[in-house]
Amino acid sequence: MFRRVYLDNSATTPIDKEVFEAMLPFLNEKFGNASSIHFFGQEARAAVDRARHQVAETVNARPNEIVFTSGGTEANNLAIRGLVEANDKYGKHIITSEIEHSAVKEVCADLEKRGYEVTYLPVYEDGIVKLEDIKNAIREDTILISIMTANNEIGTIQPVEEIGKLVRDLRETSKKIWFHTDAVQAVGKIKVDVEEIGCDLLSISGHKIYAPKGVGALYVRRGVRLHKQNIGGHQERERRGGTENVPFIAAFGKACEIAKNKLSKNAENLQILRDKFESEVGEKIAHLVFNGNREKRLPHISNLSFRFIEGEGLLINLDMNGIAVSTGSACSSGSLEPSPVIRALGRNDELARGAIRFSFGNENSAEDVEYLLEVLPKAVENLRKLSPSFQNFKQ
Amino acid sequence: MFRRVYLDNSATTPIDKEVFEAMLPFLNEKFGNASSIHFFGQEARAAVDRARHQVAETVNARPNEIVFTSGGTEANNLAIRGLVEANDKYGKHIITSEIEHSAVKEVCADLEKRGYEVTYLPVYEDGIVKLEDIKNAIREDTILISIMTANNEIGTIQPVEEIGKLVRDLRETSKKIWFHTDAVQAVGKIKVDVEEIGCDLLSISGHKIYAPKGVGALYVRRGVRLHKQNIGGHQERERRGGTENVPFIAAFGKACEIAKNKLSKNAENLQILRDKFESEVGEKIAHLVFNGNREKRLPHISNLSFRFIEGEGLLINLDMNGIAVSTGSACSSGSLEPSPVIRALGRNDELARGAIRFSFGNENSAEDVEYLLEVLPKAVENLRKLSPSFQNFKQ
Repeated sequence: MFRRVYLDNSATTPIDKEVFEAMLPFLNEKFGNASSIHFFGQEARAAVDRARHQVAETVNARPNEIVFTSGGTEANNLAIRGLVEANDKYGKHIITSEIEHSAVKEVCADLEKRGYEVTYLPVYEDGIVKLEDIKNAIREDTILISIMTANNEIGTIQPVEEIGKLVRDLRETSKKIWFHTDAVQAVGKIKVDVEEIGCDLLSISGHKIYAPKGVGALYVRRGVRLHKQNIGGHQERERRGGTENVPFIAAFGKACEIAKNKLSKNAENLQILRDKFESEVGEKIAHLVFNGNREKRLPHISNLSFRFIEGEGLLINLDMNGIAVSTGSACSSGSLEPSPVIRALGRNDELARGAIRFSFGNENSAEDVEYLLEVLPKAVENLRKLSPSFQNFKQ
Repeated sequence: MFRRVYLDNSATTPIDKEVFEAMLPFLNEKFGNASSIHFFGQEARAAVDRARHQVAETVNARPNEIVFTSGGTEANNLAIRGLVEANDKYGKHIITSEIEHSAVKEVCADLEKRGYEVTYLPVYEDGIVKLEDIKNAIREDTILISIMTANNEIGTIQPVEEIGKLVRDLRETSKKIWFHTDAVQAVGKIKVDVEEIGCDLLSISGHKIYAPKGVGALYVRRGVRLHKQNIGGHQERERRGGTENVPFIAAFGKACEIAKNKLSKNAENLQILRDKFESEVGEKIAHLVFNGNREKRLPHISNLSFRFIEGEGLLINLDMNGIAVSTGSACSSGSLEPSPVIRALGRNDELARGAIRFSFGNENSAEDVEYLLEVLPKAVENLRKLSPSFQNFKQ
């Protein structure tokens, strides 16, 4: 029986009911501009302040270290461009990885056109950056290391605490170097603590944690100087201009609070669903390859390459059966190239093109997984019947 | 009797009921990421496309000339930085005015630190830029003119059509020069037509026209090249990265449609309220000065300086009586300086500090104005009693 099953929670999540309730007054009667001095403004200001505390607490930061942005992409832009533009007198070299989100990679590529040098570190077959590679890449003029907390396509968790320690040790030798981590996919799935990580900048997004699309935050460690990017107005302690998106900030605060309070419960449930899927899918479908390290991984992502077929064909076939998945990052859709993340694992073209990301969410049930396990094998079988490479392989 | 009267509609507006209804499905069941290929994504994509048509139609543009942003500030940043960074091989000189919003002025000031030169044109007592001054300021290396359609504090309408014609004439001589106008305050109050204005770039904001805070758009004339600012992802035809804020984009589309369809009716109602206020306030309060040209002006803004008192004191006094007004732009609040817009009119410190903006909205009624006319004279009188300069003046 047809059923709608949303398994693309790494692309975006539905809004949590409690989160919706938290923002509703600010879409209605409490509509003031948080910069206004009067009653309506103060009502809005109080909501922004409350949310700032909620977000800060979730990542163990101080409230005034949180800068609200229009999302994870803007947070990454502000982190990287903001940091290097304010500090390029110390050097113009950046270290990042081959599997960063486009909001990091493309910002770095843009900076390369403007006189900066960028080292993109490999991640090898398990999809994890090696600390040794980072150490070797650091130069006299390296001012920024930007390595994600966990990857958005394969879920692999990066050695951010070790990188944080390395950067702090270097700073004790009075080297000027800072560490940014894109934690957009990690928050709400694993513990994210800016003190444990030891990062200077950390990006968060609302719509990956059951808040709406269009809001996010950058954690900026006290004392870290950034060159402002969205300029105009005194908002966010002069670090981000523009009228505050009060309803979504209120929603985001609530979503962070929930992400923190229900972290272990939610993570456990996600992992149960994901593990059920992974333990059974291999029995039902042959010629499968799991992408990325299966241990050091977020609990909700499963990335598989189905040999002999195109991921996009499978995606469309599943969609016709009500199941929503993706071939890679939604932000990269529209690109005709196979996922750069899967390529970075050393996968050949066939495997890169045959990759599908299943990302489970808090609203998924065991029935959803059962439906998936019923539909997916048929879909793969049908596509393989039409696949010349599979026919060749069988002969 | 105490009453809440919101007269700060230039700072932000409440969300229109129809606009709220238009966005509601996208805060609930239709939560997809517009970049996703599956059903959930396509539902979101359709909403973004529809909104793009609505916004385009409102300013007489083509849909693919509309770039959605996180608000008016981001639209201004993208317009100005985007244009000059993509075109600085033709020159590095910008012309703007002394009364632009901080999202234009501060972006220009930031560019000055990076090797650009900026001419800030005066506006004289009536608050309107002179075309002659623009002509005189244009140099060989001028690449951008950024003049707002109408001012946010005093409402004066600038000669944007004349500037548009001037720029087009110059381009016919094969000069490389472009024209940006910040129309954030003008849309929904007067007709804004990109063909009549003849601009290359035009900024709009949602929350000034009864959509939520956190969404806006930049009109980019076909063929105009911009250097991307919010980088990461293929969204907005490669002109603005980041997951689309689908609910607010849907809301913004609806708000634009309403702004266009009800333009003359709304503008007329606003003007009736404003004129009622202005015709009676002078009879009830002495030593008043109207700021800015009273003819070439948006229909909903009244900016008055009350001699012998501080605007901020009056604002707080009115707020205690339930009336919300402002001393200047909300984006500049927190600054201790008197409004730079009022200063640009040549007003002395006393008048600049005594300025109050009353901005009427679609939800205001004649009763609101009567309440204001009852409360305001008493508030002014009380403050003047405590004012040493007024006591000196009387003697």
